[in-house]
Amino acid sequence: MNTNHAQFLSAAAADMKESAIRRMGALQAAGRDMISFAPGYPAPDTFPWDEFSQIAAELLGSREPGVLQYGPTRGYRPLIETITTIMAHRGIPTKFEDLLVTTGSQQGLDLVARVLIDPGDVILVELPTYVGAISAFRNLQASLVGVPQDADGIDLAALDATYESVRRDGRRVKFLYVVPNFQNPTGLLIGLDKRQRLLEWAERRDVLIVEDDPYCELYFEDSAGEAGVRPLKADDRHGRVIYLSSFSKTLAPGFRVAWIAGPPALTAKFEMAKQAGDLLTGSLDQRFIYEACRRGVLDRQLPILRAHYARKRDVMEEALRRELGASVTWTKPQGGFFLWLTLPPEIDADAMIPRAVEHGVIYVAGEAFYVNGEGHNTLRLSFSAPTHERIDAGVARLALTLRRESEARATAGAAAGPGAS
Amino acid sequence: MNTNHAQFLSAAAADMKESAIRRMGALQAAGRDMISFAPGYPAPDTFPWDEFSQIAAELLGSREPGVLQYGPTRGYRPLIETITTIMAHRGIPTKFEDLLVTTGSQQGLDLVARVLIDPGDVILVELPTYVGAISAFRNLQASLVGVPQDADGIDLAALDATYESVRRDGRRVKFLYVVPNFQNPTGLLIGLDKRQRLLEWAERRDVLIVEDDPYCELYFEDSAGEAGVRPLKADDRHGRVIYLSSFSKTLAPGFRVAWIAGPPALTAKFEMAKQAGDLLTGSLDQRFIYEACRRGVLDRQLPILRAHYARKRDVMEEALRRELGASVTWTKPQGGFFLWLTLPPEIDADAMIPRAVEHGVIYVAGEAFYVNGEGHNTLRLSFSAPTHERIDAGVARLALTLRRESEARATAGAAAGPGAS
Repeated sequence: MNTNHAQFLSAAAADMKESAIRRMGALQAAGRDMISFAPGYPAPDTFPWDEFSQIAAELLGSREPGVLQYGPTRGYRPLIETITTIMAHRGIPTKFEDLLVTTGSQQGLDLVARVLIDPGDVILVELPTYVGAISAFRNLQASLVGVPQDADGIDLAALDATYESVRRDGRRVKFLYVVPNFQNPTGLLIGLDKRQRLLEWAERRDVLIVEDDPYCELYFEDSAGEAGVRPLKADDRHGRVIYLSSFSKTLAPGFRVAWIAGPPALTAKFEMAKQAGDLLTGSLDQRFIYEACRRGVLDRQLPILRAHYARKRDVMEEALRRELGASVTWTKPQGGFFLWLTLPPEIDADAMIPRAVEHGVIYVAGEAFYVNGEGHNTLRLSFSAPTHERIDAGVARLALTLRRESEARATAGAAAGPGAS
Repeated sequence: MNTNHAQFLSAAAADMKESAIRRMGALQAAGRDMISFAPGYPAPDTFPWDEFSQIAAELLGSREPGVLQYGPTRGYRPLIETITTIMAHRGIPTKFEDLLVTTGSQQGLDLVARVLIDPGDVILVELPTYVGAISAFRNLQASLVGVPQDADGIDLAALDATYESVRRDGRRVKFLYVVPNFQNPTGLLIGLDKRQRLLEWAERRDVLIVEDDPYCELYFEDSAGEAGVRPLKADDRHGRVIYLSSFSKTLAPGFRVAWIAGPPALTAKFEMAKQAGDLLTGSLDQRFIYEACRRGVLDRQLPILRAHYARKRDVMEEALRRELGASVTWTKPQGGFFLWLTLPPEIDADAMIPRAVEHGVIYVAGEAFYVNGEGHNTLRLSFSAPTHERIDAGVARLALTLRRESEARATAGAAAGPGAS
């Protein structure tokens, strides 16, 4: 007889869902001439291909066993020392025992979840927030509670009111998850003063902060620049902040190399969770990243990337103004990969996806980023990967999609006539 | 004030322990002229360095975006098709929806644990069994129950008696974990007839089998050969078996590329767990492995590796007979990386480690592989990585360690005198 596999699933697995972004990725793979604003892919034409070729030739030519052998779970030691230097540049003093190399920042989020979350624990997140974090925390059966954002990031009064309401229900808040720099998905930046007050709040309420910071180096000229992206972790005097960052957006995501910096007692637990999780991050990948840092490739890339993505942001904004005009609103991104679009309130971005696909354009519906079911008339556009021409063409397709959707709604409304519910 | 981090730990994290093998690895890194039989490292002089250099030059020279970009969680499609061919060669018909590429087999074990284990579920394992599996299952708060092994693998009568006893206690058995080919740590091979009876048992008792098979291609000439390593999965007619295998022992572990084959309903859940766990296995790593398969590198390596490790097994056995003679016993490994040594009953292999380190040799104490606290007088020796000369010298050091340990015990016993407890 055939085995009934559902009966073997853990409670966590029974609830697991496919990520909305990854589902979009599959759609893209299936489609012909689809212009994708869905996944937050870096632009592959900016990858330093020649430098990586040179590094590969030297690493593999050396026949040094460690290049292809198992290695320590904590990470390749010279890479950890390099990360210490990068962190110092961000204003964060770190020691070896604070740091762990992870297999992408997604693994960092997963390790944080496994080490900190018991089923039913409350995790506070921004409204909207990064879907990869939602998945990682939900897979540990956390209860996610959202806090609204202002133009300068998370609303502090709402944060504390939410905290109090959760406590009144007799539930425990383990941590607040924030993406302070060019947030995925909104592109928002938390103000510097607000960062200080977040730290004070965490201390007063005795909770931790998980600070996810993959985009801090990708600020645009018209933004506050380096001073404006100073991480919360830089002013963390009491060990309240667990900080995550990555090389995926600045060197290349195919390598899967990122890191966590946390209080040593927690980092030791992240390491144990990683030991049983994947033993180590790829040895060759870690060497590639280390060599790219040591040879100055990363430092040379950063100004190139800032200009590249700022220009694409401009192209997308111009196209949106031209094609969509007053029917949509957005906040100008000052860095990162994303533009967050608000549609007229009667439009459901998720329901509109089949029409968008029909017109050859895809995006991620905003709803996926909201833990409270809001955001039906929002969507996330990534301007990072497509060329200028494809951004122009894609926004034109999006505008057409939106016009057709509005017309279809108007027709349906007229057909239903007066008195329709 | 300083934050009390222990109060934030999940129940799972509070119980997490460092792996014994990884701890040995750290010891090795610290020591001077330490001969290590501890970690199961493949021999780096067998890695196909020149072929990998050539592959790197072509992949990175192509500037094909997918080489360094994000990719699908399920895996690089041509690699999945290659794995289908490898599986067919092992007698296992698979389709795309059965397979998932994992970041090493350790991730495979972790995904299996997350998708199948609720806290308190009973997992049956061999006595002794692979420590990486013990860690992965314990991190999900499984209760591990051991089943003794005979010379031809797990004892079927004991297995069923254990199952019944667990059920009488009102507990649920989710799966049996086995390493049928050249088991880590004992090197044992489960007999072919016994494999059939294991499948029948799983069907009768309505449990799953997790079959971990990294060594099947590394059989030695004097063993049963290809016919003797036929996986249980090859005869799995009811979707009872989740099968794991890897390229780490046959191409190189630094790439972190392995796979799971399971019933589609479970593989879909493994994929969702992986989405939130690390998004995808390294893109460049997957291309390296795919190209090494496509160009025939893997097929050319296998006979070389079989001869290489068989010869090292011989060297270690000769050294053990010469240096340790009748004071120890072992079963001749017919494949794989490991030789399992039983010391005189009064010797505690874990307690002897400081003396071994003093004499410049390390191993993994057998106790780490036993979920029931047994195995004090056993240890695991990996013959895979050291050269012949280092195997000879290391076994001589081990013999000296054992003599000194026995003398010290005799002296302590004499000093304590008659009547000592």
